[in-house]
Amino acid sequence: MGNPTAAMLVIGDEILSGRTRDANMHFLAGELVKHGIRLAEVRIVPDIPGRIAEALNALRGGYDTVFTSGGIGPTHDDITADAVAAAFGVPIDVREDARALMAEYCDKMGRELKEARLRMARIPEGAKLIENPISAAPGFTIGNVHVMAGVPSIFQAMVAGVLPTLTGGDALLSQNLTVQRAEGDIAATLRTLADAFPDLSIGSYPFVRDGVYGTNIVIRGTNGARIDAAMAQLSALFPEAAA
Amino acid sequence: MGNPTAAMLVIGDEILSGRTRDANMHFLAGELVKHGIRLAEVRIVPDIPGRIAEALNALRGGYDTVFTSGGIGPTHDDITADAVAAAFGVPIDVREDARALMAEYCDKMGRELKEARLRMARIPEGAKLIENPISAAPGFTIGNVHVMAGVPSIFQAMVAGVLPTLTGGDALLSQNLTVQRAEGDIAATLRTLADAFPDLSIGSYPFVRDGVYGTNIVIRGTNGARIDAAMAQLSALFPEAAA
Repeated sequence: MGNPTAAMLVIGDEILSGRTRDANMHFLAGELVKHGIRLAEVRIVPDIPGRIAEALNALRGGYDTVFTSGGIGPTHDDITADAVAAAFGVPIDVREDARALMAEYCDKMGRELKEARLRMARIPEGAKLIENPISAAPGFTIGNVHVMAGVPSIFQAMVAGVLPTLTGGDALLSQNLTVQRAEGDIAATLRTLADAFPDLSIGSYPFVRDGVYGTNIVIRGTNGARIDAAMAQLSALFPEAAA
Repeated sequence: MGNPTAAMLVIGDEILSGRTRDANMHFLAGELVKHGIRLAEVRIVPDIPGRIAEALNALRGGYDTVFTSGGIGPTHDDITADAVAAAFGVPIDVREDARALMAEYCDKMGRELKEARLRMARIPEGAKLIENPISAAPGFTIGNVHVMAGVPSIFQAMVAGVLPTLTGGDALLSQNLTVQRAEGDIAATLRTLADAFPDLSIGSYPFVRDGVYGTNIVIRGTNGARIDAAMAQLSALFPEAAA
């Protein structure tokens, strides 16, 4: 598929420690599919500057766009912005427009613009701010990298702001058929179908529900007519199945 | 922390496409913490042999243990075992002991041991089988890599089988304090605490609930007495907070 590619880098001690179950990756994956951008790799690394910079440099060289999530708050463990600046080899400091956004918000909320909060106005040189409609502290875009908050509501708002600025591709479409048969019983049939539709991706995901073995068959591609054709063949093969 | 390290490789078209929200990573992270093994990186790659082999070789060289999830079923898109064999540069073929496990299970279930199912008896040379108490098709261990199914119930059963064979470390302990204050208001305090306890990791995770800003403070380490001491200082600083 010739769609643009994306990668995601999660800065995630809280996910690696099992404390939090990721939500941002799942959200971003769904949004990118709608936008015709293929999420091609995700990495989750600890809150360690060198690890963030290393992973970021690998991903930004390998894919059209990179999204990061987490580590841009006011505390000592929020080191993403500095790690991103290091990865790009550019200086980083408090920037006046980011500071003004924070000051206005603190004023409105009756909060003090403490030194810790100013950490969130540290922006790598040459970056463009990403609006945070929830708590003001901005994300930023530098090169092909979009640096966003880890709090899901803020992450989602930032994604909504960034996506329209990206070049999408043909929407990535999919259709699903659920069959009450074990994967091993339908594997040969699926291979024949996959061979007949080399332009589509045909995936199968087995499950066990109340002791009954079944398989979800998912056909993906960008050409809706081709997916319809493959689904028609598939449905004829498994007339008892539910789409 | 001198604990053993682990990485996870998720073979996951269904996660990258947004269809499925990961559950195995979250489960494994929690189990490893209990076992004193530090999950230090996760990568999610598509069901493409070259991408699997490349990521696997990067991870198995960088960490003590690697766990993989997904892509070991009977269908044409289940290519993990072959990709792992390629990564290790060893041959792969149907192995008699794995075949016998499958045959016994199919016999018991009244299923045919079709050619497709025999795909699941393909084991790289030199690997050791991982028992699958649910649907027989085994995982396998080769070198420091444990190759397991993606279906969560089977993944979990395989992890339960593998973990006791691994050398763990001191248990990774954590305590949590929830404060009804914005992260920016407590950042300076947390930094002072982090400086006083350099052997502990002090993380802060902001949230917004019903319009109220709060922060979860998580103190992690292997020395319970030190964590208690840090928590005592923290609780004294935020007497209104809930542990």
